[in-house]
Amino acid sequence: MNELELVKRIGRWARPGAKRARELIEGIGDDAAVWRPRAGEDLVFTTDLFVEGVHFRRRGLTAEEAGRRAMGRSLSDLAAMGARPGFCLVSLGLARWADQEWVGGFFRGLIGMADRFGCALAGGDLSEARVVVCDVMACGAVKKGMALRRDGARVGDVIYVSGALGGWRRRGEIEPRIALGRKLVGKATAAMDLSDGLALDLYRLCAASGVEARLDRAPPLLEGATIEEALHAGEDYELVYTAPAGVRVPGHRVGEIVKGKAGRVTLMGRPLERHGYEHFESRGDSGSD
Amino acid sequence: MNELELVKRIGRWARPGAKRARELIEGIGDDAAVWRPRAGEDLVFTTDLFVEGVHFRRRGLTAEEAGRRAMGRSLSDLAAMGARPGFCLVSLGLARWADQEWVGGFFRGLIGMADRFGCALAGGDLSEARVVVCDVMACGAVKKGMALRRDGARVGDVIYVSGALGGWRRRGEIEPRIALGRKLVGKATAAMDLSDGLALDLYRLCAASGVEARLDRAPPLLEGATIEEALHAGEDYELVYTAPAGVRVPGHRVGEIVKGKAGRVTLMGRPLERHGYEHFESRGDSGSD
Repeated sequence: MNELELVKRIGRWARPGAKRARELIEGIGDDAAVWRPRAGEDLVFTTDLFVEGVHFRRRGLTAEEAGRRAMGRSLSDLAAMGARPGFCLVSLGLARWADQEWVGGFFRGLIGMADRFGCALAGGDLSEARVVVCDVMACGAVKKGMALRRDGARVGDVIYVSGALGGWRRRGEIEPRIALGRKLVGKATAAMDLSDGLALDLYRLCAASGVEARLDRAPPLLEGATIEEALHAGEDYELVYTAPAGVRVPGHRVGEIVKGKAGRVTLMGRPLERHGYEHFESRGDSGSD
Repeated sequence: MNELELVKRIGRWARPGAKRARELIEGIGDDAAVWRPRAGEDLVFTTDLFVEGVHFRRRGLTAEEAGRRAMGRSLSDLAAMGARPGFCLVSLGLARWADQEWVGGFFRGLIGMADRFGCALAGGDLSEARVVVCDVMACGAVKKGMALRRDGARVGDVIYVSGALGGWRRRGEIEPRIALGRKLVGKATAAMDLSDGLALDLYRLCAASGVEARLDRAPPLLEGATIEEALHAGEDYELVYTAPAGVRVPGHRVGEIVKGKAGRVTLMGRPLERHGYEHFESRGDSGSD
């Protein structure tokens, strides 16, 4: 299969979703995709790498699982912004072992996941590579000025998580919290998705907001997961978010925002370590922090 | 250097450009970037992979050259659409050999190139990888309905190229034709950028437009380049475009659009082969075309 033929096939697979996206003026097949924004909306953009040997192993996931997961990671970021998914671009570097069957399965999984959430595949790039590497850029829309950010948590807010943690155990499937994210718009003061573990991600949210978090109960756990896994292992793709005490939002209450040291997170009165899933931890000196 | 620290540094390097982009509501540091589109404009989106061992070799380019080139490839696609650059997202997978110095040089080169064309670095993703791999998604804006496409070439149009070809010889630097692309809006009937060679790229333009191209003179060549290189070697990053005979546009006239077989390209009466720089040519069966 040569590049032209592969692009044609992907175009056919992507067509049904692309047709439903009214804002997509031009999809796969030109130098660039063309999108006509709706008035009164901001657009949010995220991109996530999915690398063989780092985020997945060749025999650890089926091709379709890999495709769903590559897409799910980006959709989870749109959920964390409270956005309605619009379209995505997919860049794929293919190792020699990735044959036609694998590539077909990968795009079936990826496009199936995108379609479920109304996200049209609008373009991308293809290349060879020594290992399979996929970068998914996803764009979503949210009412002007209403995107959920990390830096809005205020003293007195309640902290919630959207579901059971310890997710690296079910490395297969991600269920992006799109519907929840959209419900939180106008209610939550801050939100982000949990990809690197509650301890590290909540540190980031609190650092951005200039506040401290006091966790006063253990988060809900997946069956078989430990509290350490829920705090530090990552790969949950649930949301963590804050809302004023008087505002009703769905989710599991795990603590509250307090005055204190920006970024500090405590559990039952003890500070949590800031580690989680991090790249490059062992490379060179760490600079100051 | 760990991931958090690297993200902070990149945020500092990107800040001047991000501040100038008024539409950029939220840049590096949240789950996603937030962009507020101007009324009356379409947005165009492109993404380009830049892979070690495929698009560059470790010792073949300096870190800054690699960064400029990764960015230049995506800007060239925006030029081909007639778009004003807006922002970009950069995903970077880092091999172990890529130390702090290399990463710093790479981002200096990339951000420098982006800044020259008013393109703000708004976010991205970082990961480890077996080889260095960079995916640059660039977004630009163009007046509603006015993006230059591939499929508008009409019989009688004149075919132009924007500069001397045979560009793979100067693998170092790309000069994206942003200013030219913007001038062509409302004048050119079709345009694309030359990344895979005039023969293959013009085939794509003609196939999309349902027309045939008759090249009646050799394109301008870089010093030392052969006509075969100009036709098939790729890596030019000039524009090829068509305009009605009565419309004055800058550029070098190389031929005209004629009635005939969709996608066919002839030079001095002989059909050109459709090959150029293509990935996966040797992989599996080729299917029908």
